[in-house]
Amino acid sequence: MPEAISENTVKEDWISFIHDLQNKICAALEASDGKAVFVEDKWERPEGGGGKTRVIANGNVFEKGGVNTSIVYGEVTPMMRSQLKIDGHSWFACGLSLVIHPYNPFVPTVHCNYRMFELYNEDGSLADRWFGGGTDITPYYLDEADVTHFHRTYKNACDQVDPSFFPAFKEHCDQYFVNWHRNEERRGLGGIFYDYQRPSEDKPVALWFDLARACGYGFIDAYIPIVEKNKNAGFTPANKHWQEIRRGRYTEFNLVHDRGTIFGLKTNGRIESILMSLPPTVRFEYNYYPEPGSEEDKLFQACLHPRDWV
Amino acid sequence: MPEAISENTVKEDWISFIHDLQNKICAALEASDGKAVFVEDKWERPEGGGGKTRVIANGNVFEKGGVNTSIVYGEVTPMMRSQLKIDGHSWFACGLSLVIHPYNPFVPTVHCNYRMFELYNEDGSLADRWFGGGTDITPYYLDEADVTHFHRTYKNACDQVDPSFFPAFKEHCDQYFVNWHRNEERRGLGGIFYDYQRPSEDKPVALWFDLARACGYGFIDAYIPIVEKNKNAGFTPANKHWQEIRRGRYTEFNLVHDRGTIFGLKTNGRIESILMSLPPTVRFEYNYYPEPGSEEDKLFQACLHPRDWV
Repeated sequence: MPEAISENTVKEDWISFIHDLQNKICAALEASDGKAVFVEDKWERPEGGGGKTRVIANGNVFEKGGVNTSIVYGEVTPMMRSQLKIDGHSWFACGLSLVIHPYNPFVPTVHCNYRMFELYNEDGSLADRWFGGGTDITPYYLDEADVTHFHRTYKNACDQVDPSFFPAFKEHCDQYFVNWHRNEERRGLGGIFYDYQRPSEDKPVALWFDLARACGYGFIDAYIPIVEKNKNAGFTPANKHWQEIRRGRYTEFNLVHDRGTIFGLKTNGRIESILMSLPPTVRFEYNYYPEPGSEEDKLFQACLHPRDWV
Repeated sequence: MPEAISENTVKEDWISFIHDLQNKICAALEASDGKAVFVEDKWERPEGGGGKTRVIANGNVFEKGGVNTSIVYGEVTPMMRSQLKIDGHSWFACGLSLVIHPYNPFVPTVHCNYRMFELYNEDGSLADRWFGGGTDITPYYLDEADVTHFHRTYKNACDQVDPSFFPAFKEHCDQYFVNWHRNEERRGLGGIFYDYQRPSEDKPVALWFDLARACGYGFIDAYIPIVEKNKNAGFTPANKHWQEIRRGRYTEFNLVHDRGTIFGLKTNGRIESILMSLPPTVRFEYNYYPEPGSEEDKLFQACLHPRDWV
C-alpha cells in the first residue's frame, strides 16, 4: 500500500525526496570513485527557480559526470504552448537528472532522471500533474550478467509498485533512446522510461512517489555493483577507441533526438547543466563498424536488437 | 559579362562544374597533405540519384575530411512539402560539400558547399530554380592576416560578379553559423553564405554560375596558402586540448542547428556522408572557458563578436 500523502505537501515532499536522492547518489558515487568529489554549482533562473548542478571530473573511476537537481517554475509561455502542447496559466517542475561517464571502457555509462510537473489555473488551483522518469545503461562491452542485474533491479523496484509497470517501461525505454538516423540503433542497452503519468483513483500520487523512490534509490543497487566489479579491469587503447566511437553515438542521440536536451537548448535553459550529459572525449570516424563477431560487434548487435534481460 | 548559358544545358553544365571542382579541390588538398589520398565511396539513393563521397584520413596535415558531390532527384514528398515548404511535382539537386579537419590546431577547419536546386511541374517543365553556397573558416587560434586573406579572397571572387554580394553574403554567414544556445557564439570566423538565389532578368543563370565558379575554385586560393603557412607549426598538448574543445562547439552547431544536417538525418539521407562533417576527436568539458586575455580567449572573443576582415 502506498503511504498516504497529503495534497498540501506533495510539492515539498517531492522536493525533499529529490534532494535526498541527490545526496545519497553523490555519496555512493564518491565512495566508489575513491578520489574525486562532486563540486556544486548553484544557479538561479531569471524567470523563476534554479538548481544545484553537481559535477565530478577526472576521478579514479569517473571521467566526467553530473548529478543535477532543479526546481523551476513560471508562467506558461507561447513557446511552451506550441512546443510542449501545454495548456494552463503557470507551471512548476522539479527533478533529478544524472549522467555518469566512467574512464574505463569496461564500466558502463549511465543516465537517470526523475521528475514531477504541475500546471496551475489562473486562480492558482492545480490544473494538471504528471510524473516521469527512468534509468538506462550504456555499456561499451557486453557483460550479460551485468545487464541482467541492471534490468532485474528495476524490475524488482517496479514490481513493488505494480507488476504491469516493468514490461511497459522497459519497452518505452527501448523505443525512446534510439538513433533513428542509424537504422534504429539504440544508444545503449535500455532500462526503464515512463512519462506523462497522471495520478488517478487507482494509481494515486502516493503510488507515483513510491515508484520514483523505488527506482530512484534503486539506482545505487543497480549501478554501483557493476562499477565495483569492473572498475579495475585492464584495457587497451583499442578498447578506449571503441568507447569513444560509442560515445559519438551517445552525443548524436542527445543533440539530435533527446526531447529534453533540444527543448532546453531552444528555450534558454541552463546550457552547462544540459550539456553536462555529453561525454568527455569523443571520436567520429567515417563509416566505422566493428569487425563481425568481435567483442565490439557483440555490443553493437545488442544495441541493434533489444532483448529481454530478465 | 557572364558567359551565355543555354537553358538546355544548365543541368549538365552544373554537374560538369561540380565534378571538376571536386577533382581540383581533392588534388590541391592531396598535394598539400603530401601523404594521404582521398578514397572514393560511390553510393546510390533508392529514390533516385546518388553521389561520390571522397574521404581523407590520418594524413600528414588532414586528420579527417570529405569532399562530397551528389546528384539527387525524385518526387516531391509530403515531408518535403511540410519541412522545406516546397511546392512542385518533382525535384533535382546537385552540389558539392566539403569539410576538412586538420590535425594541427594552428591550421583552421574549413567547410564549403555549392548547390543548385530545381523544381518541376507535372509536365516536366521547370517550375523553380535556385542556387546556394558558401565557404566558412573555423580557426582554433586567431591569425588576423590569415582571416583577412580568407575573407579578401571571397570578396575578390564575389566582386567579379557583383560588388553588392560580398557584404550581404558575409553578413548572412555570420548570422547562420551561430550556436544560438551559447549566447550567439559563432562556430568560427565566417566567410560567405548565400541561399535561395533565383535567377532573374538582371541576374541570370549565367551570373549564378559565374559566382559559384569564382567562389568554388576560389576555395583553393583562400585555404591552401593558410595550410601551407601553418602546417609545420609546433604545438603543445594544451593547443590540441583547446582545438578539441572548439571541435565540440562545431559538433553542437552541426547536430543542433545546421538545417542541412538535420534535414538529412530526418529524411533518410546517406548518414555517413552527412556526418562526415563531424570532427575526428572532440572534447566536452563542463563550463569550460579560456583564461581571459589568453590566445585561446582571443579566438573565443572573435567568435562572439564578428568583425569586418577586409
